[in-house]
Amino acid sequence: MGRVTRFPDDLVERMPGGEAITMIVVDGVGGLPHPATGLTELESATTPNLDAMAAESSLGMHVPVAPGITPGSGPAHLALFGYDPARYLVGRGVLAALGVGIRLREGDVAARLNLATLDGRGRVTDRRAGRPGNAEGQRLVRRLREGVMSPPGVDLHFQHVMEHRAVMVLRGDGLGADVSDTDPQRTGIPPRPPRAEGDTASARTARIAGHILARAAEVLATEPVANGLLARGFAEYRAPGGFSRRYGLKAVAVARYPMYRGVARLVGMELAGTPASDDEAVELMQGAAGHADFRFFHYKATDSRGEDGDFEGKVAAIEALDRLLPGLDDGGVVIVTGDHSTPATMAGHSWHAVPLLIRSRHARPTGRRLTESACRQGDVGTIAARHIMSLALAHAGRLAKFGS
Amino acid sequence: MGRVTRFPDDLVERMPGGEAITMIVVDGVGGLPHPATGLTELESATTPNLDAMAAESSLGMHVPVAPGITPGSGPAHLALFGYDPARYLVGRGVLAALGVGIRLREGDVAARLNLATLDGRGRVTDRRAGRPGNAEGQRLVRRLREGVMSPPGVDLHFQHVMEHRAVMVLRGDGLGADVSDTDPQRTGIPPRPPRAEGDTASARTARIAGHILARAAEVLATEPVANGLLARGFAEYRAPGGFSRRYGLKAVAVARYPMYRGVARLVGMELAGTPASDDEAVELMQGAAGHADFRFFHYKATDSRGEDGDFEGKVAAIEALDRLLPGLDDGGVVIVTGDHSTPATMAGHSWHAVPLLIRSRHARPTGRRLTESACRQGDVGTIAARHIMSLALAHAGRLAKFGS
Repeated sequence: MGRVTRFPDDLVERMPGGEAITMIVVDGVGGLPHPATGLTELESATTPNLDAMAAESSLGMHVPVAPGITPGSGPAHLALFGYDPARYLVGRGVLAALGVGIRLREGDVAARLNLATLDGRGRVTDRRAGRPGNAEGQRLVRRLREGVMSPPGVDLHFQHVMEHRAVMVLRGDGLGADVSDTDPQRTGIPPRPPRAEGDTASARTARIAGHILARAAEVLATEPVANGLLARGFAEYRAPGGFSRRYGLKAVAVARYPMYRGVARLVGMELAGTPASDDEAVELMQGAAGHADFRFFHYKATDSRGEDGDFEGKVAAIEALDRLLPGLDDGGVVIVTGDHSTPATMAGHSWHAVPLLIRSRHARPTGRRLTESACRQGDVGTIAARHIMSLALAHAGRLAKFGS
Repeated sequence: MGRVTRFPDDLVERMPGGEAITMIVVDGVGGLPHPATGLTELESATTPNLDAMAAESSLGMHVPVAPGITPGSGPAHLALFGYDPARYLVGRGVLAALGVGIRLREGDVAARLNLATLDGRGRVTDRRAGRPGNAEGQRLVRRLREGVMSPPGVDLHFQHVMEHRAVMVLRGDGLGADVSDTDPQRTGIPPRPPRAEGDTASARTARIAGHILARAAEVLATEPVANGLLARGFAEYRAPGGFSRRYGLKAVAVARYPMYRGVARLVGMELAGTPASDDEAVELMQGAAGHADFRFFHYKATDSRGEDGDFEGKVAAIEALDRLLPGLDDGGVVIVTGDHSTPATMAGHSWHAVPLLIRSRHARPTGRRLTESACRQGDVGTIAARHIMSLALAHAGRLAKFGS
């Protein structure tokens, strides 16, 4: 077995073969009780398909990063994919760039951009420039590409993402990403200059970004609406390492939102496509069944409704996911969980542990539903999210024994 | 308290005195539901003595190494004894040597040997040489001792274990143990030459082992049956450190199988003897009561029947252990658990968490049985196996307070 990569932490070797694994991430699915009913979103939802799956699954809870830590989507997904999120601090800029398909290299610095509207005195009046359509957004980014030259020693690349959103990538030696946002996050004041504290690489990058944004402002000055550019989420790309090589899995990702395609790309998964609807996403998953060993499916609506503080909307989103579930189940090992909790009562991400289901022939079922109360009494106990992949591989018969 | 060793991880000091601790390891006791009944092996067994003990105990689950990791017996026992199994990778050769009482020194390399039968063209026809009796096995190992000289710079030692099994120890500077097995694991092909990948110490050891095995083949060539020698499980001895010094416990081990006496010796426990039956083992335990602070009892039949895929046999083995239990209970702190799960439905070790019982005056009893379903709702929660010793010491009144 000399050629086989050891996993994890050099502890055991992988076994050749094994079952396929499907990881269904129901974004922000964990919740808190509704004050009127005492029931969480999962407890309130009618989910016959999920219930049937849970009844024959091992249940548990996972802590995304550490107790009390509310994670963003990037680190939460890295943890689900088995990477220690504390070791791979992935910024939004990098996720945005990867999500639109830019092939980043180690050391690249990426930032998210907003096309914005400034008034005559340079103050932000609309942080989203009236949400231009995609064609208009693409036209504006083309203008930036043509009008803003790469600074000496740096390759500059602009790319449109969606509506008012774009991304900027700087490639060159000795760049840093500890650079502050220029987006003031509110209107009535001008964009801030990019600043760097700390190392000189970031200070140099802040100066370069300052020149680029000043030149971009000149290029856009004649635009009637989108006459400004705001940057945030400067981040440096450090590749976490190949998911496929690490786990011996041919991995395919299906996600409607670029951000989640980005984090899947970050670890080296293939993207099945860019589905425009949940049904299209399910079709892509079905297309991947049979030739992918690992299928990652990202479902966003639960998190969106949770962030809106819309308890009933989140319940409905869980029920909509339940209707998709039969189309996602290929009969192999199935994980259903969230990347973190987004309780509607908090209208935001939270640190609370997240319900987890592992459906396999080797489960220790309790016959209960996928809810916070059932999962905390489940067989798996409460584990760190980054151990879920080991469990999935074990259930799929893909890990060798440790020691003899 | 200057003379008192701090434990664990330098966190707290040990208290002088305290109660005795009995650790009963029911090998592979954790299981999975029988498809027909939905009950695990423990849930299916009739165990009045264990039930009575469990009803007044704290219950919990332990994860032997890490989620998803299926452990071998060596690392699983190290974890039960409070050692991080990832830090002490213990090979079979070392366990075999320790199990027959060889006093290994740091850096020694040991390998397991099989007396085997080869045909006229050097192909293995019986990997166990017809399972010779112990007297015959001892005679053959004597021939090896007399006929195979120690290579330059190395002390060579052969010792008989049982039937066709023996062990070889190499002592010298700069030896390595990353040496491949010569046992081809099947008949019809010749033994493989020992090979080393990686460091030069292992490459040197592979060359030395090659010479030894070639000479051994010459010595055995005139034997009618056992005319070959196969080696596997090359392992280097690195002492995990003294169990007694670490915990302040005079520790005695009782195990019928050499492998488990080996792992007990590895951490420095005394061996009470070599019991030939369960009843004899219980007698040795009773003999140790009163003058040992820690008694380790290993019970094998549960794992053997589990590995056979014999669900009913494993249930019967649990029931047989139940009958031994009163004879093992000295009234002090008692731990009953497994080193890992061996579900009969999987016919092998698995990664699943293992039921755990701690009987003491300071328990938080639930009145329930020692089963997977009761233990996952127990007071102890789901913990790493290597934390069990801290709990045992605490229950025995042997750990001081951390901070003031």
